[in-house]
Amino acid sequence: MKPWVQYLDEFKSLSERVLSLEYAQALIHWDMNTGAPKKGMGDKAKMLGTLGGESVKLLTSPKMNELLEILEAHKESLEPNDYQHVKHTRKRYDQMMKIPPKEYEEYLALCAEANQVWEEAKTESNFNLFAPYLKKIVEALRNFIVYRGSQEDHPYNTLLDDYEEGMTVEKLDIFFNTLRERIVPLVHKIREKSQPECSFLAEKYPILKQKEFSDFIAKYIGYDFDAGMIKESMHPFTLGFGPNDVRITTHYHENNLMSAIFSTIHEGGHAIYEQQVSQNLAGTLLAEGTSMGIHESQSRMFENLFGRSLAFWKPIYAKTQEYFPTLSNFTLEQFYKGINITKPSLIRIEADELTYSLHVMVRYDLEKALFSGACEVEDLPELWNKKMEEYLGVTPENDSVGVLQDVHWGSGLFGYFPSYALGNAYASQFFNTMNKEFSVFDELEKGDFTKIKEWLKKHIHQFGKTKKPEEILIEATGEGLNPNHFAEYLEKKFTSLYNL
Amino acid sequence: MKPWVQYLDEFKSLSERVLSLEYAQALIHWDMNTGAPKKGMGDKAKMLGTLGGESVKLLTSPKMNELLEILEAHKESLEPNDYQHVKHTRKRYDQMMKIPPKEYEEYLALCAEANQVWEEAKTESNFNLFAPYLKKIVEALRNFIVYRGSQEDHPYNTLLDDYEEGMTVEKLDIFFNTLRERIVPLVHKIREKSQPECSFLAEKYPILKQKEFSDFIAKYIGYDFDAGMIKESMHPFTLGFGPNDVRITTHYHENNLMSAIFSTIHEGGHAIYEQQVSQNLAGTLLAEGTSMGIHESQSRMFENLFGRSLAFWKPIYAKTQEYFPTLSNFTLEQFYKGINITKPSLIRIEADELTYSLHVMVRYDLEKALFSGACEVEDLPELWNKKMEEYLGVTPENDSVGVLQDVHWGSGLFGYFPSYALGNAYASQFFNTMNKEFSVFDELEKGDFTKIKEWLKKHIHQFGKTKKPEEILIEATGEGLNPNHFAEYLEKKFTSLYNL
Repeated sequence: MKPWVQYLDEFKSLSERVLSLEYAQALIHWDMNTGAPKKGMGDKAKMLGTLGGESVKLLTSPKMNELLEILEAHKESLEPNDYQHVKHTRKRYDQMMKIPPKEYEEYLALCAEANQVWEEAKTESNFNLFAPYLKKIVEALRNFIVYRGSQEDHPYNTLLDDYEEGMTVEKLDIFFNTLRERIVPLVHKIREKSQPECSFLAEKYPILKQKEFSDFIAKYIGYDFDAGMIKESMHPFTLGFGPNDVRITTHYHENNLMSAIFSTIHEGGHAIYEQQVSQNLAGTLLAEGTSMGIHESQSRMFENLFGRSLAFWKPIYAKTQEYFPTLSNFTLEQFYKGINITKPSLIRIEADELTYSLHVMVRYDLEKALFSGACEVEDLPELWNKKMEEYLGVTPENDSVGVLQDVHWGSGLFGYFPSYALGNAYASQFFNTMNKEFSVFDELEKGDFTKIKEWLKKHIHQFGKTKKPEEILIEATGEGLNPNHFAEYLEKKFTSLYNL
Repeated sequence: MKPWVQYLDEFKSLSERVLSLEYAQALIHWDMNTGAPKKGMGDKAKMLGTLGGESVKLLTSPKMNELLEILEAHKESLEPNDYQHVKHTRKRYDQMMKIPPKEYEEYLALCAEANQVWEEAKTESNFNLFAPYLKKIVEALRNFIVYRGSQEDHPYNTLLDDYEEGMTVEKLDIFFNTLRERIVPLVHKIREKSQPECSFLAEKYPILKQKEFSDFIAKYIGYDFDAGMIKESMHPFTLGFGPNDVRITTHYHENNLMSAIFSTIHEGGHAIYEQQVSQNLAGTLLAEGTSMGIHESQSRMFENLFGRSLAFWKPIYAKTQEYFPTLSNFTLEQFYKGINITKPSLIRIEADELTYSLHVMVRYDLEKALFSGACEVEDLPELWNKKMEEYLGVTPENDSVGVLQDVHWGSGLFGYFPSYALGNAYASQFFNTMNKEFSVFDELEKGDFTKIKEWLKKHIHQFGKTKKPEEILIEATGEGLNPNHFAEYLEKKFTSLYNL
């Protein structure tokens, strides 16, 4: 028999094959979204399916299971990163293997169909069209939860765990209760106040200048162009191939400068996270962000805690005015107030920093109810509208701008939404800890991201997937998820902005 | 037992997996050459290696062999395209399987090393540095020829066949003898004549304008931007993913406008070939050009027979002058003479239409001698210089601009060069046949590529790899390779240009 360390090499080599296939899929995705010729789209989609099959085949091969079993039997002898690599791969293996392949294939086909029906239903604002498909998706997921059988407390926990390992209904209830108690009243209070002058938000700004400014601002916050690039796509996203190549996209609207600026800073935050993953993890399945929530904490820290602060713009507002002469008619203070305007609205992706998490809370309440059995798909539109009224004081005039607005559910993405709000909460918690070591706003006013990036690398980025989200949070901040940081931050910021 | 047609489906599905892996490698190649971030290059190169391993593994799997055997036993019942698909795949399978895998792996590693040494040797103009590696490559290839054992007439035929199926020393000798007898004297005669005024060739032209003109000219000749795109890379190339996505690159030099223009037309010719492959072949291994030589015939037909003709520029010269006002000081006639200047030079890739094939002839003579055993690697520099003097009347002052100039040999590409010259010969032969049906120059003067593209599609492009190069040539033109077409074309064109 071979010495067991040889199996470690075999495992690494097999993982590297899985990773190469996954990166190839990512590159096709990148290509399709950044200008691939339209006639080739069908062929590319087919390629994605084929390569997806290849990577799953390797990931779930008997050989992989055999190697994992041998290495698990020697886990005390493994280096910490190798141990995490094995553990993470086992988790992915189990996720795939516990569901009967035929059912999973049918589920994927169902989602593909549901997605198309959702588009139609949204256009026609007709929930009844979409409901039968959504019912089937929910049913399938309920079955998968039973197959996977690991989370006994609450069925929804299994889905939460897919996007945020260790996250539970119990923890999220505490989190969202805090928002319900402290942020909902704040939103309602601000509705009665008048809004600041912000006509510059609606002006036209040349696309070419916006592109140049995107490059400038990405570089300014510390995005490394030698390990990435910015292109344009319909919807902004970040795509990483390990720390040495993390790409971002932005979308430019002539009449919405802020969209491009804050998209770039947001995606830049995601990208800096992955660019700062340890080089030791490059070429392994661990070379990416640990979870959706921690990822979102980095993008939102850059976008909101940094990017929507006065300190951030102080050193570069003059330069920004050079790029966009229209802004010369507005003071820095006016600019700051303008980019922080808050107003309850119907659409999540257009929501501001204060109201955003309440949109997520609506979805959380509904998803939790669906998977506990407290409600069924047909109840969703009514519940949605009731919650929107309660949290935000607005009621959708139709389902197209209500329960049908998001792409997620038709793609089977249940359990995903909470990570958007968690990101905000984590961000504030990290920010407060960092602030104990040095004044973050002082660094921003100096226009120097060195210390900030170093802190983030040391406490969060370098680990990639070798630590679970909660481990990172506790080791970095000394406590688990504590929603008070986020609530206090919002209260302080918006009380001051709106003179409450 | 299953009905045999089910095996056809299995074969198609397995081939599609091979193809998806090959396209993924092509996309990585595209990405690396059109702006991928530099820090990620090492990871990408590794990915290429891994995915290359995956595709070879599938191509040479026992399953593939089993399916091929079953289908070969039913070849009479196969549709013609399916039959060609099986045949082509069998050929690729055999190419890989007849060489012991370990030797092939060692050979790939040798080439990778030799390539680096070649770069160094070229920089230092030191052939002795490169010679030991080249010797090993030649030795390996000589062994592979024996393993593959199919070509009994001349060992070099095995290598020729890899790039131009059915090509032999016998046929090429006739071809190159014609060039030696008719083109070499012509070149020597022109050396005594004075050159036309062509100072515009050395002027500076803004890169941005060159890019715009590249897009214009590609579209003008019929390149479909909905099934492709143009980007910039160090060296121009064409890369296809089946007929629905065929991309080209150009390189822009401020002080060499003609380089970008004729690169774009050349690559455009390659690309139009693949864009016009039958949609029935999309998603199969047959959806590309049939051979290097036929491919090159299309690029060179567009570049030289069309692009360097007076008729081509007549309808667009005024527009070209708008793009590049410097040209307003030159008449169409002067422009035409300038882009057709011929002058013997040392470097193949900078050679003009008349002398280009003589550079190839030098390499052909040497490769043939190497594989017949008539010479050894150490004889190459002296032989090279002797041939250059004989054919072109110039002698390299050192090996860097002589025997070391090309990347090919250090990458194991022996048998490849002749296809460059064959492309020229095929192009003239196709052109003359097309001209019997309609006046090509009349169409060019109208600025209308419809008929031309239709003819090429009907007789060449649509077939992809379902027909061998010689089949295409004979069916389209009524005869096999006939070098007189090319020789006559050159004689006529350059006799007139230089008033001989």
